[in-house]
Amino acid sequence: MTSRRVVLPESEIPSQWYNLQADLPAPLPPVLHPGTRQPIGPSDLEPLFANELIKQEVSTERWIEIPQEVRDVLSIWRPTPLVRARGLEKALKTPARIYFKDESHSPPGSHKTNTAVPQAFYNATQGIRRLTTETGAGQWGSAMSFAAKQFDIECKVYMVKVSYQQKPYRRSMMHMWGGTVTPSPSNETESGRKILAAEPDSPGSLGIAISEAVEAAVQREDTRYTLGSVLNHVMLHQSVIGLEAQRQLKLYDDSPDVMVGCCGGGSNFAGLTFPFVPEKLKGKDIRFVAVEPCCCPTMSRGQFRYDFGDTTQLTPLIKMFTLGHSFIPPGIHAGGLRYHGMAPMVSFALELGLIEAAAYHQIECFEAARLFAETEGTIPAPETSHAIRGAIVEALRCKEEGKEECIVFNLSGHGLCDLGAYDRYFSGELEDYQYPQEKIESAIGALPEISDWQES
Amino acid sequence: MTSRRVVLPESEIPSQWYNLQADLPAPLPPVLHPGTRQPIGPSDLEPLFANELIKQEVSTERWIEIPQEVRDVLSIWRPTPLVRARGLEKALKTPARIYFKDESHSPPGSHKTNTAVPQAFYNATQGIRRLTTETGAGQWGSAMSFAAKQFDIECKVYMVKVSYQQKPYRRSMMHMWGGTVTPSPSNETESGRKILAAEPDSPGSLGIAISEAVEAAVQREDTRYTLGSVLNHVMLHQSVIGLEAQRQLKLYDDSPDVMVGCCGGGSNFAGLTFPFVPEKLKGKDIRFVAVEPCCCPTMSRGQFRYDFGDTTQLTPLIKMFTLGHSFIPPGIHAGGLRYHGMAPMVSFALELGLIEAAAYHQIECFEAARLFAETEGTIPAPETSHAIRGAIVEALRCKEEGKEECIVFNLSGHGLCDLGAYDRYFSGELEDYQYPQEKIESAIGALPEISDWQES
Repeated sequence: MTSRRVVLPESEIPSQWYNLQADLPAPLPPVLHPGTRQPIGPSDLEPLFANELIKQEVSTERWIEIPQEVRDVLSIWRPTPLVRARGLEKALKTPARIYFKDESHSPPGSHKTNTAVPQAFYNATQGIRRLTTETGAGQWGSAMSFAAKQFDIECKVYMVKVSYQQKPYRRSMMHMWGGTVTPSPSNETESGRKILAAEPDSPGSLGIAISEAVEAAVQREDTRYTLGSVLNHVMLHQSVIGLEAQRQLKLYDDSPDVMVGCCGGGSNFAGLTFPFVPEKLKGKDIRFVAVEPCCCPTMSRGQFRYDFGDTTQLTPLIKMFTLGHSFIPPGIHAGGLRYHGMAPMVSFALELGLIEAAAYHQIECFEAARLFAETEGTIPAPETSHAIRGAIVEALRCKEEGKEECIVFNLSGHGLCDLGAYDRYFSGELEDYQYPQEKIESAIGALPEISDWQES
Repeated sequence: MTSRRVVLPESEIPSQWYNLQADLPAPLPPVLHPGTRQPIGPSDLEPLFANELIKQEVSTERWIEIPQEVRDVLSIWRPTPLVRARGLEKALKTPARIYFKDESHSPPGSHKTNTAVPQAFYNATQGIRRLTTETGAGQWGSAMSFAAKQFDIECKVYMVKVSYQQKPYRRSMMHMWGGTVTPSPSNETESGRKILAAEPDSPGSLGIAISEAVEAAVQREDTRYTLGSVLNHVMLHQSVIGLEAQRQLKLYDDSPDVMVGCCGGGSNFAGLTFPFVPEKLKGKDIRFVAVEPCCCPTMSRGQFRYDFGDTTQLTPLIKMFTLGHSFIPPGIHAGGLRYHGMAPMVSFALELGLIEAAAYHQIECFEAARLFAETEGTIPAPETSHAIRGAIVEALRCKEEGKEECIVFNLSGHGLCDLGAYDRYFSGELEDYQYPQEKIESAIGALPEISDWQES
């Protein structure tokens, strides 16, 4: 197989999602109620999420059917290409074979749509007429607006106010697909009004926007909330990435030694790698590298313990790698990687030693992105540049060690709406930032004392 | 075939370009020297263009080999998908079958790269180390920067100053691929200095930028000029679009009744339709509709006569549909369609009755773009929205007439770097503009009296 790209026919869009929960050597620690600190049940989640999504959240079935209506919408951009990065290999003079799975071709430009579409579908079939969500830089909000439009339901997005002002392109994209975008904090919710009363010029935060979106969802019978990462059902929906990659690698007659993805909430990394985990569990020598930014080192320097998903302590307590919900990372351009926690499934896999973590600085990631754009064409999102950096580090190791390994990474999204960040890189304005250990310790130290539920 | 998309394997990237010059019922009128007004020869063009491109410019060979090095780079995004627009069909309730060829997936996001790559290649193999070009909104400049980087030669882009200031994203894209971007008018050329002396705050124009790029090319032995539309060799290189579409339509077991493309200089329209012209010449009932903006109605309201390609009368005289080189269209968002002339080959085909022209207003085109984005996902470039409008008009005619025709249009590029234009559309700020007949007549009336060379 000498092709640069392998594109599967539409008939090979996976018909089932793969659920790693079925194969984990131990069950996931339960999610706890923030008040009672006891495991929560489905009824606690019903005002927030569609029933089918709640079932998927706790399911331990290995394979879950993808509805035909969902596959029909996925076919707008799936199956996505698996590309042999010969240009990058040549530039690095590495004996390694580098492949990337190109998730940048969805209409909003990232992998986020893979879960936005089933989330919209399950809500629509349950008779829900309206979805709320929050968005930072706008990737998730635009994916959710697009998906809601496909099933003819409304989408209401609370967008962090400073992004709303600074990222007009993502906002326009949401308008294009019929989404309603409100800068957060807003006067539309109690949470928003409270913040505005205390700080009229508040620039907003993801934590505040989550509170607004959740509040707006529970207020109305016909409305539910959607989330673009972290949750188990999001990891499930993203498995289409890895499942397609498995078939494509077979066509190349190749098999991965190392797989790399960037990690914010964890969903694109999980989507690529989880379908390959069973091979590792059966003894295959394969490494999974989750790459995060040095200045938000959730997995490399955080702790595996119970914490809240949001800053304002509204969400259930989840066992995950965390820097503490009060941790505020510096404003790097990879906004999607600025999260204090990590998906419970990714965290648990790390704790079990199934995956490993790596952290890189912003500038070295932009350098990797530039080399990638020069040699492979696509301009990657700043988040994605971390995966590229991770893949390059592995390829250079192979060169040093003279090893012909197979490296596969996830090109989670393009950077066409982030070109301002590249301008700052080219003009030398960017800075790297190593978070001081004492600040991390103090954020983690402030966490409530919750003895491990399973062991208690 | 029920697939939404048909993607050909890499091996089906065409190995030859199709040259309509071989099949035209009469030879193209010659290009005239601006001074002598006699037909120009290859030696007149050698300081400007690579020799191989000059040969292609005048070739009447039907098939011209695509070098393997060019096909290798094209394989970064080619073959492009042919998509059955079922979502759009459903929304229009039309019995017509609508397909679009998706040229938006190239790294710079449009069809322009199809000719940028061979232009860079032929210059590189001739030992040229540096290319100059001009760009308005930045589509062509970014395509040329990307292509030059693939063959490791320099690219110097003169970008119309007002766009340089207002369209930072396209500028960043050029930087990303190593292009040098200079706002035009600049102090680097005699032409630029002359303009700046007379008008220090000049916002620039495509005409001025062409003058600067041409001057900078002829100044140095190791430098040539490149152009992204109008010329015959550009039409030739774009034929990959239609050649792939032919094979893909066969897989759908379908055959076009109407083909639609937007027209600025003419290259994406020609690329899609020219390979189908021989079928029409053999008697097949097939229509080719070239869509232009109402406010720059080159084909619908211009004349077929000799005119200069640029505002400042530096270029050879070419026989084409023109509104007169002094015609300045209003500042609509489809910047790529604001050209006073039209490719000689497209013009000649129109004069011969092989193709037809249609003109639409800006707002109805944005409406078409919105419906397309909602139903098919991709947000189109403002230029491309004219082709979509044209296809919708044909589909609605089919509905009225109860005809099950096959409509194929070219999705020439995405609009992710043009979302500001959509904001203006959504906020109701856009205006339609019908160019007054007397202004058109006065611009055409000002043309030099050149008796038709062939008949003289």
